[in-house]
Amino acid sequence: MNHAPTNANEVTLKRLVLKTQAKQEILDITERLQRALRELGVQNGAVVLFVPHTTAAITINENADPAVKEDLLSALNKLVPAGPHYKHAEGNAHAHIKASLIGHSITVPVQEGKLQLGTWQGVLFCEFDGPRTRELWLTVCAA
Amino acid sequence: MNHAPTNANEVTLKRLVLKTQAKQEILDITERLQRALRELGVQNGAVVLFVPHTTAAITINENADPAVKEDLLSALNKLVPAGPHYKHAEGNAHAHIKASLIGHSITVPVQEGKLQLGTWQGVLFCEFDGPRTRELWLTVCAA
Amino acid sequence: MNHAPTNANEVTLKRLVLKTQAKQEILDITERLQRALRELGVQNGAVVLFVPHTTAAITINENADPAVKEDLLSALNKLVPAGPHYKHAEGNAHAHIKASLIGHSITVPVQEGKLQLGTWQGVLFCEFDGPRTRELWLTVCAA
Repeated sequence: MNHAPTNANEVTLKRLVLKTQAKQEILDITERLQRALRELGVQNGAVVLFVPHTTAAITINENADPAVKEDLLSALNKLVPAGPHYKHAEGNAHAHIKASLIGHSITVPVQEGKLQLGTWQGVLFCEFDGPRTRELWLTVCAA
Repeated sequence: MNHAPTNANEVTLKRLVLKTQAKQEILDITERLQRALRELGVQNGAVVLFVPHTTAAITINENADPAVKEDLLSALNKLVPAGPHYKHAEGNAHAHIKASLIGHSITVPVQEGKLQLGTWQGVLFCEFDGPRTRELWLTVCAA
Repeated sequence: MNHAPTNANEVTLKRLVLKTQAKQEILDITERLQRALRELGVQNGAVVLFVPHTTAAITINENADPAVKEDLLSALNKLVPAGPHYKHAEGNAHAHIKASLIGHSITVPVQEGKLQLGTWQGVLFCEFDGPRTRELWLTVCAA
């Protein structure tokens, strides 16, 4: 783990550990990411957030009303219900499919050391087959 | 707003303003983006397109037949219908969910100052809770 | 096609050709991508994988059990069935919609010349209106 400031044009990879507590859960990780960027000393550029799992995903949505996260999980459960009707025999096929619908990587602008998000936006880590110890990988493209 | 050519290895953030006219609407913003890249003077690299909202999204699809955009909106309305069955009480929970299904950021290659898109591709801004004044943020990673 | 090592801070675009064999099909292209990165001589950074089509997409998921790919295709067929109920008259509207649900670009970290993927992850090219000759464009952002 490198806490020294990022040099110009450096591309840095940092691995964060996240612990999820429930079978399905959406974690707001915005503050955690802001802290990681401060530690990396990034000033301007963009950060790629990459989920190295097949039953978890990452998205952006409202973090003010926690009901939005519940609605998102419910809607995904309606669209892709758990059940015995899948070929993948481990019981978590629904989680694999949800992960591909939501996606494994997003890229967020960074300015003056901070994630640039809209007023109502938070970065949300989506656990679809927990609880588990998960990772999130940050690749910082700094100018 | 910086109209000077982008230097080597610079990472530039530019904010575009978009006005949507309907409750739900898909806008083809390809020409607008090509113009913004020309103004930025970017030559080669990639551009991250980031939507700083929680009820709007960005995708790529066919821009030749406008029916494709209508079909996409209809399909999303079938998958995630508006209605009173959500916990988020503002009436736009469906819009939040659609935004996470489509996504808030895409990255497109740039060569010789132009977005590199496939023959039939256009960049589409998706409004799910309009009409509103929206923004699209461009982060240019140029070599 | 440039097989020389990528210089510091270079941004390189490489076009791969993929042949799909079925109407709908998910191809594991992980090994193909690792080979392309070796040929480009990339060391550290990130690679943007961009699908320049409107009826194909790219995602990440499990590559160990092929049933996961079948489940993903089946689930998408349930969510967005083919049929005559679309306005786009070419019979492939379902494919356009699936492509926007899964997405056209993902960004993956690269370290010491290799794609950095999780243990169970593979990169999956999704054909929704094949068989066709397709392309995948790699934009390498190297430090």
